Amino acid sequence: MDNNTKHTELSTLGEFGLIDHLTKNVKTQQKSTIKGIGDDAAVLNFEKNQIVMTTDILTEGIHFNLMYVPLKYLGYKSVMVNLSDVFAMNAQPRQITVSLAISNKFSVENIEELYEGIRLACEKYGVDLVGGDTTSSMSGLVISITAIGEAKKDDLTYRSGAKLNDLVCVSGDLGGAYLGLQLLERENEVFKVNPKEQPKLDGYDYILQRQLRPEARGDVINALKKLEVKPTSMIDISDGLSSEILHICKNSKVGCDIYEDKIPLDYQTKKFAEELSINPLVAALNGGEDYELLFTVSISDHDKIKNDPDITIIGHITEEREGANLVTGAGTTIPLQAQGWNQLSKK
Amino acid sequence: MDNNTKHTELSTLGEFGLIDHLTKNVKTQQKSTIKGIGDDAAVLNFEKNQIVMTTDILTEGIHFNLMYVPLKYLGYKSVMVNLSDVFAMNAQPRQITVSLAISNKFSVENIEELYEGIRLACEKYGVDLVGGDTTSSMSGLVISITAIGEAKKDDLTYRSGAKLNDLVCVSGDLGGAYLGLQLLERENEVFKVNPKEQPKLDGYDYILQRQLRPEARGDVINALKKLEVKPTSMIDISDGLSSEILHICKNSKVGCDIYEDKIPLDYQTKKFAEELSINPLVAALNGGEDYELLFTVSISDHDKIKNDPDITIIGHITEEREGANLVTGAGTTIPLQAQGWNQLSKK
Repeated sequence: MDNNTKHTELSTLGEFGLIDHLTKNVKTQQKSTIKGIGDDAAVLNFEKNQIVMTTDILTEGIHFNLMYVPLKYLGYKSVMVNLSDVFAMNAQPRQITVSLAISNKFSVENIEELYEGIRLACEKYGVDLVGGDTTSSMSGLVISITAIGEAKKDDLTYRSGAKLNDLVCVSGDLGGAYLGLQLLERENEVFKVNPKEQPKLDGYDYILQRQLRPEARGDVINALKKLEVKPTSMIDISDGLSSEILHICKNSKVGCDIYEDKIPLDYQTKKFAEELSINPLVAALNGGEDYELLFTVSISDHDKIKNDPDITIIGHITEEREGANLVTGAGTTIPLQAQGWNQLSKK
Repeated sequence: MDNNTKHTELSTLGEFGLIDHLTKNVKTQQKSTIKGIGDDAAVLNFEKNQIVMTTDILTEGIHFNLMYVPLKYLGYKSVMVNLSDVFAMNAQPRQITVSLAISNKFSVENIEELYEGIRLACEKYGVDLVGGDTTSSMSGLVISITAIGEAKKDDLTYRSGAKLNDLVCVSGDLGGAYLGLQLLERENEVFKVNPKEQPKLDGYDYILQRQLRPEARGDVINALKKLEVKPTSMIDISDGLSSEILHICKNSKVGCDIYEDKIPLDYQTKKFAEELSINPLVAALNGGEDYELLFTVSISDHDKIKNDPDITIIGHITEEREGANLVTGAGTTIPLQAQGWNQLSKK
């Protein structure tokens, strides 16, 4: 947090004052939003379409470190985390509610910054902020967002629809967000020892952006629609590829072969992994927060997707008894394990 | 928290393990729930009806003190807080999502207890638990719940519909939850000084229940429907009568006269207020957490509601320029002020 700027104590506004202050410029744009902020509840109307509803809670010290995460980026990312889940259902996000618990170390200006990021995300993705709650916390910041999306019944994609021989695909590239976090943590440690040293972030803008300002892949959902491809199953990659493909296999009662050398990795991801002497593949498999989409498509859709630069085919679905496996470059088969980002495990 | 019982570290289950464990017996019963827990998002379907959406965040040390609030009651109450908002729109609650941030002082058994309360509330009110998120926190417990309700478009009641000469009504009685809290805090202070002394709670079961285990007034919503009375405006009383009637007046652009001697107070509320030498009316006007409904009805509905034992007429709507006033027993008029329960104000 930047402590050089104006610092207005939260208590000067009080709860209602703060909510009014933060939401006074909030306008709604969705046809489905009948009434936004300002009553006991928001009122929504979706006519014949189905609704998806998802929620995430982010806590300071667990999901983010305000030593190196700007509040505006944090606000933006908090929305992305939820929109990513809506897109993973093949639905379009429409509304969010935002609840905050804030300790008194934060100023009104801090929370304005956070809201600025939330507002930017809403604007960019055409989502209405329709409600929320703001309260004190005894320590740190907690952000809880719930998102509502809309889809035609037949467009929805579940984790349970993968079929034998389907192709396994991912959007974008993986492992970058994890390596961006390692970079930020390394420079933060340096800063703690020597606050005058400038952080060495040059040449790593992409992995930093992957960590600090991810984008939910609505563009991929729209591209698939244009290509007339409906995934048979889909999930977003928030806890690492291993964990997510295992969810699909378990829910669809299938196995899979994932080819190590097909997993898309960015140049910066590989370069910084090398600098840290770690295998970038481990970051892709077990690192968190990439917010890409993992999905399966029927093999008959192969020609429609094979030239899309945002989509990589990384394997195929097998029978359940064959299990979920990683096939190495040397042809060895290794069972995939969920070692994903587990915030409740012992450190 | 009871420390004599089994204590299983949260880390033994991990995040997915804990969610699976807590939600394994969750069944959905609403026709509108197409898919509950187990995918990126829940899927809901409401056909032609409109949807209301509301969210609340409760933090340890601000909204609850686990020295004297059993976790099961806390779970129950957390749901009630949200259902109360849904009823205040004259809608029927259908689904909730529950997000928890939990510090490592809690055991799996603690969180099971909390969930047991949530489950009881869902069962009693016919609401489906369709999703959520569970994570660590650096300190204490944070509970964030979002509720979805359903209503016919023309049944919805907003804060903005009160008209000149409408009757102002409340359900139940007021101030009890605040006095229940004072009682619990007093006995907690005694306990801190002398842990062997038994708490003196006899004869105050009603105000304790008002504080620890409130019920959202769905029964009043149903009663009004049977009486064929549609309130012109409605809000739930979570921050004290003053604050809520001011919301209605502001949103409806009206004034009101509230008669001091009409405000319903329970015997125990009055008795304990006397013991503390405070005016029980102050608890009704400015105490929080009663979760009763405050609503206005057309004067032509007077005969329909006048004999309902759960409804009290406490005043009437006046013109905006007359302001929102309390009329005392002696006939003096005092402007109402929002001094409600403000968690962000300086203590």
